Order: sequence, then C-alpha cells, then structure tokens
Amino acid sequence: MKGFLDNIRRVTPYTPGEQPSGKVIKLNTNECPYPPSPKVVEALKNMDHERLRLYPEIACESLTAALADYYGIKQAQIFAGVGSDDVLSMCFLTFFAGKKPILFPDITYSFYDVWAEVYGIPYEKKALDRDFGIIASDYYGENGGVVIANPNAPTGILQSLDFIEDIVKHNPDSVVIVDEAYIDFGGETALPLIDRYENVIVVRTMSKSRALAGMRIGYAFGAPDLIRALNDVKYSVNSYTMNTPSLIAGKAAIEDDAYFREIISKVIRTRIRGEEELCKLGFRLRPSSTNFIFAAPPEGYSAEDIFARLKERGIYVRYFRQPERISDHLRITVGTDEEMKALITALEEITGG
Amino acid sequence: MKGFLDNIRRVTPYTPGEQPSGKVIKLNTNECPYPPSPKVVEALKNMDHERLRLYPEIACESLTAALADYYGIKQAQIFAGVGSDDVLSMCFLTFFAGKKPILFPDITYSFYDVWAEVYGIPYEKKALDRDFGIIASDYYGENGGVVIANPNAPTGILQSLDFIEDIVKHNPDSVVIVDEAYIDFGGETALPLIDRYENVIVVRTMSKSRALAGMRIGYAFGAPDLIRALNDVKYSVNSYTMNTPSLIAGKAAIEDDAYFREIISKVIRTRIRGEEELCKLGFRLRPSSTNFIFAAPPEGYSAEDIFARLKERGIYVRYFRQPERISDHLRITVGTDEEMKALITALEEITGG
Repeated sequence: MKGFLDNIRRVTPYTPGEQPSGKVIKLNTNECPYPPSPKVVEALKNMDHERLRLYPEIACESLTAALADYYGIKQAQIFAGVGSDDVLSMCFLTFFAGKKPILFPDITYSFYDVWAEVYGIPYEKKALDRDFGIIASDYYGENGGVVIANPNAPTGILQSLDFIEDIVKHNPDSVVIVDEAYIDFGGETALPLIDRYENVIVVRTMSKSRALAGMRIGYAFGAPDLIRALNDVKYSVNSYTMNTPSLIAGKAAIEDDAYFREIISKVIRTRIRGEEELCKLGFRLRPSSTNFIFAAPPEGYSAEDIFARLKERGIYVRYFRQPERISDHLRITVGTDEEMKALITALEEITGG
Repeated sequence: MKGFLDNIRRVTPYTPGEQPSGKVIKLNTNECPYPPSPKVVEALKNMDHERLRLYPEIACESLTAALADYYGIKQAQIFAGVGSDDVLSMCFLTFFAGKKPILFPDITYSFYDVWAEVYGIPYEKKALDRDFGIIASDYYGENGGVVIANPNAPTGILQSLDFIEDIVKHNPDSVVIVDEAYIDFGGETALPLIDRYENVIVVRTMSKSRALAGMRIGYAFGAPDLIRALNDVKYSVNSYTMNTPSLIAGKAAIEDDAYFREIISKVIRTRIRGEEELCKLGFRLRPSSTNFIFAAPPEGYSAEDIFARLKERGIYVRYFRQPERISDHLRITVGTDEEMKALITALEEITGG
C-alpha cells in the first residue's frame, strides 16, 4: 500500500571495485601506488582551516586558473567537479537532453549506461571489433551524442588523435565526450581539438595519474559555450561541489609537474615489466596505455577462478562477469614493483607456471 | 546550424549569495561567524595524507557511524552527501520520479523549483499565508511528494513538530522531505518521526551550525528502505561523493558536542540582540529560529536600496527581488557581535535612525 514506492526511481547502480580494508595488495580500482605529491600534503597542512566556515569558491577559480595555466588554455574552457564521475554525470545531464540515442561502445566504462538510465537518456551500444577496437564508422550516423573513453576501459587500448578527431568531425550536431581518465599514461590527448571544434568535451581526473582518488577531483575541457552550459546545470544541482581542501590539493598537484612525471614514468616502467611477466606465464594481452593491464589467463584457466584465488591470498584485482565477451579477462591495476612481484609469484603458484 | 545546441538542457540555475573576497562583513550566505571546532582542525592536520591516493570510503561509513552514535539511530537510517544541496538533489531525483506534482511553499528555499526543473519533476507551489505561515491543509491533497523547510527560509519561521507530523501523516503515499538546514538554531527536529513513518526524510547540513560550509557535508535521516533507494541513485550518479577530508572533518565535528553547543548559543544570543536593535530602528520582523534575521525596513525605506547602501559600506546581506512578496525584506545572517554592531551602525546612518 505504500504509494510512495511508485514514485521512487528504479536504478541499477554502477558497481565499483571492492574497497577492502586492512593489509591487502590492492590492484582492483586503478589507484596510484604512490602517495600524492609532497607539495599537495604541504598545501593541505598549511591551509587556513578557519576559512572552512565559509563556502568554497563557487566557480573553483583557483583550481581552474592553475589548470588553464598548466594546459595553456583559457579558464572559460574548463569545468571542475567531484571526480571525473561527477564531471561525466553533469555532461550526460547537460548535453544529452535530446530524443535521439547517444552512442558508446558495448565494452567501455560501465558507468555510461548507468548515467543514461538514471537521467532517462536513450542510448545504443556499438560493439567493439574482435580485437576490442572501436569501429569509428559506427559513430557516423545520426545520434544524440557520443561518448568515447580513450584509452578505453577496461581494455586499456588507445586510439590515435586522428581517430578521435574523425569521430568528432563526423558529429557536428552532437557533443562528443572524450573520457581521458587514463590519457596521462601514454596517450595523445584530444585537448587541442577544443579550439577547433565546438562540439567536443575532454574529461580528466586526478584520481589515477595524480594519486588523488581520495580527494575527488575531475575536470573537463571544451568550448566556452559548452562549459557555460555545464556550469548552468551544475548550479542547478549543487552550487558548491568541490570543497576547499580539494581546490587546494588540485592546485598544488597540477603545479608539481616534476612529481607527476616521476610517478607516471614509474607506473609505466612497472606496467611494461608486468606485461612481460604475464606474457611469460601465458597470459594473453595487448599493450596497455593506462595504469592497468587487461589480460586473459592461459588456456585452461578461468579468469573468475584466478580472481578468487588471488583474493584468498589477499591480492585484489578486478573481474567483470559482464559483458560476457570480457568475462575471460582480469583487469590488474599496476601497483608498486613489490606488489607486482607478489602478484606474479601468486599467479605462478596458481597456474603452476 | 549547431545541432547539438538542441540537445543541451536549458535551465535557470539557482542564484547563491555573492562570495566577495577581501575584507568585507559577510552576512549574506548564512555561514557561521565562528571557526570550525579545534578538534576538526586537529583531525584534518593529523590525517594520513598518504591515504589520499586511495578512493574514499564508498558508503561514508566512519561518518554515518559517528552520526548514528550521536543521534541514537541506526547507520542504515543515514545518508551522507556533499552538503545538504547534494542530499536534497539526490532526494528529488530518487523520490520524485512520479507523474503527480510535488508540493512546496511559494516562498521557501529557492533551489526546490530549480531541482524540479532540472530533473523534469512536475511541481506546484502553495502560497504562504499573509504572515508567511505554511498552511498545512494545502499539503493534504494528492501529490507526488512534499518538501517543507523547517524552519523555513528565508522567513526564518519555525513550525512545531506536531505541524510537521500532521503533514507527514496526511501523505502516506508521498515522501515528505523536511529540510532542517537551520533546525539546530532552536527548533524541534522531526528526527523521531523516522521511526514511526516510512515516508519521511529529514535533511541536515554541517554548513551552518557546525561552521563547515567549506567542507560540504550534508546528511539525511529516514527509514532504511528510503536510505537504500537514495544510495542506489547516488551510486548511479557518482560512486564516491564525499572526499576523505570531509569524512574526517564531519566525524570530528559531530564528536565535539561542547563546541557545537557553545557556538550555537553564541549565535542565538547575538541574533536576539540583533533583533532587538533592528526593532528599535523600526524594522519589522518575526522572531527567527535560525542563524539569520528576515526583516523589512521601516516604512519609507526600500530593502533593495538599503541592500545596495550596505554593500557600498562593505556589508553584504541578502536581498531577493523575487518572489515579489518578499522584495521588501532583507535576509541578514547573524555574524559576530562586532559585525552586528557595524551593521546596526550602518543601518542607523542609512535610515537616520
């Protein structure tokens, strides 16, 4: 008889990786294995805590100014939010209010269809090819918008800037979102496109490459008109999203480029070694352009089984039962060299390799 | 020719109070004039900054545990978010997915119709009576949900718990949201209703009474089924909303009850003195149950004009041109005694009082 139940929105939420506590080797949510920049820690410690009684900067000015400076673009071309999930969610709400279906790959960040569902946006998934490649021409037809993760997740596969530009060019009547959560690990960014195309939004996060998952800092680049529309919708949802510490931490992180480059190259070196070791064990994989490795176990071994047996040993990786095409894969976040050694040792034991 | 413009959501965002920088007397956004608890500052300084590389707690467990303890309820009855705006926004998205119009007063927190618009929720505003009172029977009819701010804003007027319960009782088929952003300043909370009614949600914030506007911490109480629905929608928008520092600050704030009581009573004392002084100057007002005073200037003076002349003197209060019925009022946040003295002196000069 509870009539109000009829008015409750029915959703199937996104399932993030487990967040186990205690001493485990955590290679399941693509966090950075290194701590944030010491300059971030210093900035947070030196923050004027009395200021916390006041609302934060409404337009995240200090952060967007630092980002504009770093990337050599205008502040009016930047939107900031509570992690790239918040930024992407706002993009879906803002740019996909039409009636035509939006398009994205069938295997990609599994939050895209969740946002489409919660905001009532029609959508269509386009199948990746047999090698998990995105087929550009699938995105040439009429649509209400396009979302491409580059590098794609959880495949780790990078597309070239020309490939991305081709999709943007073929969609003058749609906003094309390029989700670059992992671009810092070796890809060419679509950032230059924002000066040449009015319909492209490039989304970034500080969670992975800047070791700040716990701060929730994301941002987007785009033409000032698009950024203005995004801000209008944001101000229609929550006037103040990023709190004062996150603005301070974000600014300090972007200003410490040396540390950023150092941890990025460490992660890339460890990833390459990890890829080699996994290949030796008979895992099948493509070169990753991210901070994770997407790999299928040797013939005769089940990914789900290995996932479970690693977990018994206190090593958490990510396993996706759905979509079925990737249910024979594991997504392994690149940890420290020690963590990767422990992983390889465990896999040797499990596979008898 | 830009087709994508047709797909952009058109909104009229909420207009928050100005956030001037520099040395001003800021009585325009209902912030607390006192700094956060020293225990909050200590907890933030002592935080394990290395942990920031990891995602925050997904269910805000440490904060909801502290809140459950403090309020004597179950963790399953608590939802937490990025300020009460985030919490309210999620409530609108979650509980108001029906086709019938939701109801709220015509003069109230002006974000309600913004959320209804952005999420495509039909709504109907019910006029306050001549004394800015809420008419309970206006909320007895069929509806898709009810939202009542208690105390109401920007009027500052409190309704009794019986009054709120009456509206909840008359709406077994709707979720009734009680927005208690200002309840700590002297009202009786509807919190006990959550054990007796399955359809009530009580929303709170740490921005005002706990001096943490800059941290963005809000929360809601309700039956576990409602909280579960809220979390499902939240996990469909952004898995991790509250960052690690805000969880730490929120927990420390709720645990320092002595400091909370101290600043609350200081604000209330200053408010009462401010009300007396304003009355002496011929301002017309009703006793406030909040951390602000809603007052109409003496006959012959325009609120808009006084607003502008205060601003010239570096004193910021809030003026609402809309709705018209309150365009002859000013909303004045209770500051420190010194700030209120400066305000009264300025008003004496302006009104020649």
